[in-house]
Amino acid sequence: MHFADRLLAACEDKGAPVCAGIDPVFERLPRDLRGDAAGPRDAPHAVEAIGRFVRGVLEAVRPHVPCVKLQSVCFERYHWRGVKLYDDMVREARAMGLIVIGDAKRGDIGISAAHYAAGCLADDVDAPGPDALTVNGYLGGDSLEPLIDVAAAQGKGLFALVRTSNPGGDALQGLKLDDGRSVGEAVADLVAQQGEAHVGERGYSLLGAVVGATKPADAASLRRHMPRQIFLVPGFGAQGGGADDVRACFKADGTGAIITASRSVNYAFEKAPEADWKQAIEAAALDLRQQIRGILRR
Amino acid sequence: MHFADRLLAACEDKGAPVCAGIDPVFERLPRDLRGDAAGPRDAPHAVEAIGRFVRGVLEAVRPHVPCVKLQSVCFERYHWRGVKLYDDMVREARAMGLIVIGDAKRGDIGISAAHYAAGCLADDVDAPGPDALTVNGYLGGDSLEPLIDVAAAQGKGLFALVRTSNPGGDALQGLKLDDGRSVGEAVADLVAQQGEAHVGERGYSLLGAVVGATKPADAASLRRHMPRQIFLVPGFGAQGGGADDVRACFKADGTGAIITASRSVNYAFEKAPEADWKQAIEAAALDLRQQIRGILRR
Repeated sequence: MHFADRLLAACEDKGAPVCAGIDPVFERLPRDLRGDAAGPRDAPHAVEAIGRFVRGVLEAVRPHVPCVKLQSVCFERYHWRGVKLYDDMVREARAMGLIVIGDAKRGDIGISAAHYAAGCLADDVDAPGPDALTVNGYLGGDSLEPLIDVAAAQGKGLFALVRTSNPGGDALQGLKLDDGRSVGEAVADLVAQQGEAHVGERGYSLLGAVVGATKPADAASLRRHMPRQIFLVPGFGAQGGGADDVRACFKADGTGAIITASRSVNYAFEKAPEADWKQAIEAAALDLRQQIRGILRR
Repeated sequence: MHFADRLLAACEDKGAPVCAGIDPVFERLPRDLRGDAAGPRDAPHAVEAIGRFVRGVLEAVRPHVPCVKLQSVCFERYHWRGVKLYDDMVREARAMGLIVIGDAKRGDIGISAAHYAAGCLADDVDAPGPDALTVNGYLGGDSLEPLIDVAAAQGKGLFALVRTSNPGGDALQGLKLDDGRSVGEAVADLVAQQGEAHVGERGYSLLGAVVGATKPADAASLRRHMPRQIFLVPGFGAQGGGADDVRACFKADGTGAIITASRSVNYAFEKAPEADWKQAIEAAALDLRQQIRGILRR
């Protein structure tokens, strides 16, 4: 089944186009998981604790969200042990019926791009890849092609970085070209063009776009530049994005974007009795779903 | 010692500013390493063979080049086993006195950028990081800052992607801004600015730039935009870059660039009796050194 169709169906099934971002950082885990061991420099201990945490998050959010996003570097941080855990978590989350986005922001050219497609996206005998991968298209359309090929063959998707929610994102993405477009809009056009040949039944391409939720005017413009892209929208909640920013990412029919929240879900227990950390995370996932449904109803 | 000073000294010590790129692909290994096992889908076998190959390459090039570049995805391709080997190869190459560039092209924002700095660049109890890392600055200057901080603290370096040698690189990097600069030149200015506070005794920053060796006019312009950046120049040899392309990357005094060749060195044995694969690789490394010395003398 085409990735975009599958993602839209999953969003309808769970009642909202939301994604729980999972960015596990040892130092922020609940104390009962961290224990009193040597801390983050004791990699086996840290990886074990992170594994227990991520499993807890997956169980907590599973009934309420169609999709999770695993932040690759939180695992890569612990070298091979962390990478092994990442692959295990991708497998377990997929087995729970969740759509899994690997947030690895990879990008390279030629044969190296093909290797990233094989190693970070494709299903492999050693490890099932995620359902979708975030990628960086600065290197041009041909750097995306091998990834698109694997995605098309395996019913998977990609989200190319177009506009990011960090303060410094404007420094390049906000610059104006001589034809009036911003650099971000030029990347959007490139993404739209690369994704054109891979559109599913519902009208969306397997190649989506990452569009940070902090600039409503930008989002509206990018929506026009990329009519067939599903937007993966980080920055809601902890990074400062609000309802107006989010609404501009959707089409009038309420499709076309997935809102992802990481810290506000992962670390919801920091504002609650820590012993109930799973409950706090579940409540935050439910709250995210309700907020986005509310925004889409207005 | 400052990374740029260390790199320049190593180039002088070995007699030329060259780098052997190591991009090991199981299917292209000498037959006696591949054996007759199940092939690339048998990960433990493939990783073992790749390890033997990379050790052979390191021994072959070590007397002749100051620097090696390990292509991360060739290892990531094999999930945790490959990542473990990558870390081992970084350690062994550094122990041989080679300067090691991790070619991972990472880039993310905020805390994730800090995790990439910790996981892919910093020395760690579990794994020594490489001496330098390739990074993608599309997300803006603040995405580079945590990496620069780690590099400055540990005498390491970074090479930010500015201009790539693939056919599709122009699609974005070659676009013109309303101020007359190309997008690539704008990224160059961003890199120059970010690196300004971290210049060593010889006048170069720890933040260098990746500049593909396929467009001499571009290279000359980028050289002006980035007076304090060491250029890491791929694309010489197999990707079609030639002497004129290369010369434009250097300053008049012959400093300011490292020319890297991967396939023409790694796979030199494909045009020779395969049994002597190490010798063929050593001859190719020597040849690379001689070619670049020749270009710099003219």
